[in-house]
Amino acid sequence: MAAGIRANELAAFGICRPTLLLDERRARRNIERMARKAAAAGLRFRPHFKTHQSAAVGDWFRAAGVSAITVSSVDMGLYFAAHGWRDLTVAFSANVLESDKIDSLAGACTVHLVVDTPETVAALAQRLRQPVQAWVEIDVGGRRAGVPWDQPDAVLALVRALRGTASLRFEGLLTHAGHSYEAEGVAGVLEVHGTSITRMTRLQELVRGAGLGPCAVSIGDTPCCSLAQAFPGVDEIRPGNFVFYDLTQARLGACTEDDIAVAVACPVVGKSRERQQLVLYGGAVHLSKESLRDAAGRMTYGRLATWRGDSWGPAAAGAALVSLSQEHGLVAVDEALLAAVEPGDLVVVLPVHSCLCTDLYGEYRTLQGASLPRRQSNLVPRD
Amino acid sequence: MAAGIRANELAAFGICRPTLLLDERRARRNIERMARKAAAAGLRFRPHFKTHQSAAVGDWFRAAGVSAITVSSVDMGLYFAAHGWRDLTVAFSANVLESDKIDSLAGACTVHLVVDTPETVAALAQRLRQPVQAWVEIDVGGRRAGVPWDQPDAVLALVRALRGTASLRFEGLLTHAGHSYEAEGVAGVLEVHGTSITRMTRLQELVRGAGLGPCAVSIGDTPCCSLAQAFPGVDEIRPGNFVFYDLTQARLGACTEDDIAVAVACPVVGKSRERQQLVLYGGAVHLSKESLRDAAGRMTYGRLATWRGDSWGPAAAGAALVSLSQEHGLVAVDEALLAAVEPGDLVVVLPVHSCLCTDLYGEYRTLQGASLPRRQSNLVPRD
Repeated sequence: MAAGIRANELAAFGICRPTLLLDERRARRNIERMARKAAAAGLRFRPHFKTHQSAAVGDWFRAAGVSAITVSSVDMGLYFAAHGWRDLTVAFSANVLESDKIDSLAGACTVHLVVDTPETVAALAQRLRQPVQAWVEIDVGGRRAGVPWDQPDAVLALVRALRGTASLRFEGLLTHAGHSYEAEGVAGVLEVHGTSITRMTRLQELVRGAGLGPCAVSIGDTPCCSLAQAFPGVDEIRPGNFVFYDLTQARLGACTEDDIAVAVACPVVGKSRERQQLVLYGGAVHLSKESLRDAAGRMTYGRLATWRGDSWGPAAAGAALVSLSQEHGLVAVDEALLAAVEPGDLVVVLPVHSCLCTDLYGEYRTLQGASLPRRQSNLVPRD
Repeated sequence: MAAGIRANELAAFGICRPTLLLDERRARRNIERMARKAAAAGLRFRPHFKTHQSAAVGDWFRAAGVSAITVSSVDMGLYFAAHGWRDLTVAFSANVLESDKIDSLAGACTVHLVVDTPETVAALAQRLRQPVQAWVEIDVGGRRAGVPWDQPDAVLALVRALRGTASLRFEGLLTHAGHSYEAEGVAGVLEVHGTSITRMTRLQELVRGAGLGPCAVSIGDTPCCSLAQAFPGVDEIRPGNFVFYDLTQARLGACTEDDIAVAVACPVVGKSRERQQLVLYGGAVHLSKESLRDAAGRMTYGRLATWRGDSWGPAAAGAALVSLSQEHGLVAVDEALLAAVEPGDLVVVLPVHSCLCTDLYGEYRTLQGASLPRRQSNLVPRD
């Protein structure tokens, strides 16, 4: 085991600093698995592209039959529109300050927005010049955004407000059950899933019963979409993280560690017998400060993976990143691992949260050494 | 108070998405204050540029008389060397995999490296073709990197190893007392400072006493450098964060909230009376997930600032960011703030940790509307 964490073969690609790795085979397998599940359940598969943010990875979804996608910002939508995508949901409370950019996007594609307040509906109706589709977001328990599921009158009022506009065409009810991330294992996730669908389909019946026309239901989180086998009443799923997965999803049981398709190669720059630590060139700016608590209650910012010669395997036992500063990562290790690694070696870190980790980089390096460019959320072309 | 958090004047600069703001007046004031303190104490001022990572901000240091700087990676050193800096300390355990890049840097500038293991000294001695200066890093209690302060024999062995090489010229002992960040307020920081200096100067005497020649002492953290008035035995200080400060430094007492020179402008995209929350377009990819615990034990990821028309003021009461997802920020607010803000308004978030927050962006926007480019840690020019 101890000998299995040195990944020095990666130096052949010129890797000498923290570098974002992508295992294409695993990502394509994750995509195909979710696409098959959606097809089998008769669901529209509208994957969220906020996790990968790469035109190249987007092409792997195209190869799996995907033609409609989800993004989390108008800027991200413009990026994918420039790469040929023509049907996009911006699954984020519509930002009325970006009305001009929404118009640009809607001039090139079918755009679906998300609203949850009458003020936003009124502002969009006044400002938008291009017609768009509009979903009403429902808070089924995540307490982030959306009309609370137990306020049916507010839901109906918002649907009526949309139907009173010329530019916003009501499409249905959308939710992101983000509280699945706090669930206790598989059973907890499935309970969130069941409750969410019940709450969404009840509101759907209410809208239909009020004579407000067709009303689709769209749900979105990776834990529920990975673990559930049944989606009664659901029309569309929008998971995103599943393309790469991460330690958070593995902890929930939504994937195995062998499904994790991204990792960060880091040089070892120090080791200390006194502190029982390896020191990595690999810190908060390379991994993000997203954390998990381990069984002993310690914060963990990643784990060293075992290395198989051509890709990484599951996490190595007893090799958790227990502290991150800007560029340093500290790995608590036992004597055996300490003896097996030297400054100048490369190791591979499995990320706690692939969406945040990958957004720190401008490219992926595949395990064949290729570079796949990706956008970063804050590198926005200036007008 | 409630009316004082809308910063809609910023829309005049075209700001409609999360945008990193820089108050030039405050940053210059922070620089001048630290430069004056160093001069008064007879210290070499070698500021750390990892916080701002901007050639333009670097020029403000030049204007304050700075000619030698600190960086945290070889790539960052190459960036500043390309902008005319000729004397750089890479204050990070030397990464032997980057020997070629170190040679390139050392061909253009005076380069100072940091070592803490004999293996690294041996590898550098073998690989480097350009001469460099070398500091021995001491762990004075931060437990991140460095030879433990209570292992004088290991320190002497490392100094002797350096003196046995042709390319690495021993310069002195360097530390970063990062545990000052965990100290209890001003008294706690000053205790860390006093203990650190005592430990460093004792080792310095030991090195001199062993006939190993001149031995300088370099210290570095912003809390100690901001709060201490005396630096007996210290030759050089390397603080970095002080150029911008942040909520973490304000909490420690190392600055006031009025010294915080960077903040993030965020659009309000939702509000919920039921959840007593504002929803911001401004999440983990715009602020980082660095957190502080508030008095009630809740995690806080930033605080809304008051707004004075042309810049921000101190944090508004009762407006903490209590949850971040990838692009959403949730602000817990009272009724008065809830009533005072609407979707479409802009608000300003004070960051918990300015080093991590600013590294997410490719530019600063000044309060005069100018754009100052900055490098990001992971956007490295490819060979």
